[in-house]
Amino acid sequence: MDDRPNSIDTALRRRAAQVIPGGLWGHLDAARLPAGYPQFFRSGEGCRLTDVDGHTVIDFMCSWGPIVLGHRHPAVEEAVARQAALGDAMNGPGEVLVELAEALVGLIPAADWCLLQKNGTDATTACVTIARAGTGRRKILAARGSYHGAAPWCSPSLVGVTAEDRAHILHYEYNDIASLENAVDRAEGDLAGILVAAFRHDLGRDQEMPTPAFARRLRELADAAGAALILDEVRAGFRLDLGGSWEALGVRPDLSAWSKAIANGHALAAVTGAERFREAASAIFTTGSFWCAAVPMAAALATLAVLQRCDGPAHMQAMGGRLRAGLEAGAARHGLVIRQSGPPQMPLVLLEGDADFARGNAFCAAALRAGAYFHPKHNMFLSCAHGPTEIDEALEAAEAGFAAAARL
Amino acid sequence: MDDRPNSIDTALRRRAAQVIPGGLWGHLDAARLPAGYPQFFRSGEGCRLTDVDGHTVIDFMCSWGPIVLGHRHPAVEEAVARQAALGDAMNGPGEVLVELAEALVGLIPAADWCLLQKNGTDATTACVTIARAGTGRRKILAARGSYHGAAPWCSPSLVGVTAEDRAHILHYEYNDIASLENAVDRAEGDLAGILVAAFRHDLGRDQEMPTPAFARRLRELADAAGAALILDEVRAGFRLDLGGSWEALGVRPDLSAWSKAIANGHALAAVTGAERFREAASAIFTTGSFWCAAVPMAAALATLAVLQRCDGPAHMQAMGGRLRAGLEAGAARHGLVIRQSGPPQMPLVLLEGDADFARGNAFCAAALRAGAYFHPKHNMFLSCAHGPTEIDEALEAAEAGFAAAARL
Repeated sequence: MDDRPNSIDTALRRRAAQVIPGGLWGHLDAARLPAGYPQFFRSGEGCRLTDVDGHTVIDFMCSWGPIVLGHRHPAVEEAVARQAALGDAMNGPGEVLVELAEALVGLIPAADWCLLQKNGTDATTACVTIARAGTGRRKILAARGSYHGAAPWCSPSLVGVTAEDRAHILHYEYNDIASLENAVDRAEGDLAGILVAAFRHDLGRDQEMPTPAFARRLRELADAAGAALILDEVRAGFRLDLGGSWEALGVRPDLSAWSKAIANGHALAAVTGAERFREAASAIFTTGSFWCAAVPMAAALATLAVLQRCDGPAHMQAMGGRLRAGLEAGAARHGLVIRQSGPPQMPLVLLEGDADFARGNAFCAAALRAGAYFHPKHNMFLSCAHGPTEIDEALEAAEAGFAAAARL
Repeated sequence: MDDRPNSIDTALRRRAAQVIPGGLWGHLDAARLPAGYPQFFRSGEGCRLTDVDGHTVIDFMCSWGPIVLGHRHPAVEEAVARQAALGDAMNGPGEVLVELAEALVGLIPAADWCLLQKNGTDATTACVTIARAGTGRRKILAARGSYHGAAPWCSPSLVGVTAEDRAHILHYEYNDIASLENAVDRAEGDLAGILVAAFRHDLGRDQEMPTPAFARRLRELADAAGAALILDEVRAGFRLDLGGSWEALGVRPDLSAWSKAIANGHALAAVTGAERFREAASAIFTTGSFWCAAVPMAAALATLAVLQRCDGPAHMQAMGGRLRAGLEAGAARHGLVIRQSGPPQMPLVLLEGDADFARGNAFCAAALRAGAYFHPKHNMFLSCAHGPTEIDEALEAAEAGFAAAARL
């Protein structure tokens, strides 16, 4: 148990439990985290977060992805203030829509056009609908355990979901070509699209980068069937490669879904696509009350500019590498074996022989008290605000974590 | 055709057509409006909007609903700036979440709890999922022509939608008790919920308030079946009655979906519900990357406070009444017969004998040039920023509109 003062957090949780079912919906529910993790935050600055009881930590979740430049990045917040002084939700978009759409199409080689939305789920759902509209077919292939959003067709839970919501979803195993081919066969000529995450980041299991053979085979199978290859960039987008996470693989999707990091925390999502699906994208019905709001678009434009200027992915890769090397050495000093997987920008750290996550939880809880906010089973996120000083400071906090884990 | 300068708008549309399928997605696409309507806006202030070519008009669409206090309302933007100076998307919500949830539950008699999201579609979809989770049944009844969002289960278009997406949706006619009873029968003991819009606001047809008998029968049928009565407040919410649009009818829903006006243009949606569905609401999987962001919650809290302080619904009703009376008189002066329907806060104006909307379009195009932004076939929206002066100014612009319509 945590013995630090947390009375404000505790009081807020008690009040929240009265008016919010279960205290909080969704992935930010602190009940899913080790004891001692705060639920409520007061403020953020750069790579640091301060909770309502005044504890400041170095943040390795970045709001679970959106914060790619650091909390309250000055260039982004300046662009936001400039646009907000003019207007946000008007009866049509601002000029900034065109600038942002041009920037995305210019930045992403696979993109000939884009649509904008609010949630990652909006983007993945639109991709599926566009693939069906463009092909006149129905089946969508998705990797088992890959997360594609919180809608009845893809939610990780079946509570309140009907069998029909999933009637045309077929599963394959990530990085498993035979299972992929088998799923294509099962689609029996009715294949609209193949959905694939930028890399394998299922909860609580080692991450895997896509093998080149798997990525190429996806492209071949989609082409052979005339189906859309849909890349889910919601989680990885703008951290691995600004042009698209699979650029280095040489495999380009027909449709991509983006969200999280696109506007450094401001609510925005996007679908980008190839010319071939432009007409289908214009034919589907997709809209939302706030989708033309200008402020988040201004935030996105500023975010992309900073990411390009400072080569954000390379910076996050270097800092993620520094964290990884330090954690490896720290674990060894305590006689622990850890498994670090996935791209350095989005690390996952699991402890060997820790099936119930007891050691991982102890590691995280102790590291948190020492000043670093890690996650025991979900991939973490670096931001451009993490520099060598902050990484080294976090590694000191990790020392306390390893010591606690080693005592178990 | 419009002979006013619109070269900036034209140039932006040309650029947009290159990078956005069809030039723009969704309901803010100006191609659906009469010639002369701008697509791109520079700024908004109070009830006035200025397009990119510098034309300022009195706005009767309010971003199609979200702007309930007027564009860039100082109290809302101050609250936004205050929260933004602390943090927005963090690893959990800010204290403002609890304050907002308590405010909603305090304001809305039918609400014992709430969830927050980003889109109206998020809210209606969550209501359906909660109703299914809470009842263990599948069928959802919805009125034909009522709009419940842009997702495969409810989108007004079938492009890219499969038959299975709608497998458990049954339709009835709004305000038609016999058709409602018939739909309940067709659900054959598998009824999870009955979805109903706060009033009938189908595109291009006279609006209808719910009859008391219809509303009561909905409640009785839901109770008899143990199903959820779901009120779609996305469009009407916070304009008719801050406690819920059906308070005056004495009929309370089990679940309500809110969005648009809740945060004066900032991206937010909410589900509120009765105790009976609290457990189901905590059991479903519903989340989004930006759903805990603190800034839009601060905007909502400020918006609700201003609406309460100034009795927003009463003000908008009075100003909508003033507009209605003025339009009635103006039309008569020009020998035109108009039909005005729906609540004064959300007026629809249709011209008699105008099946192809030619006169309505001429009315709107001319009124726009004279300084008032009306819509020829969709309900419009008043805001608290519309005062007597602005209404009278808009009525002068309407004069030009009626003259143009009468010439046809």
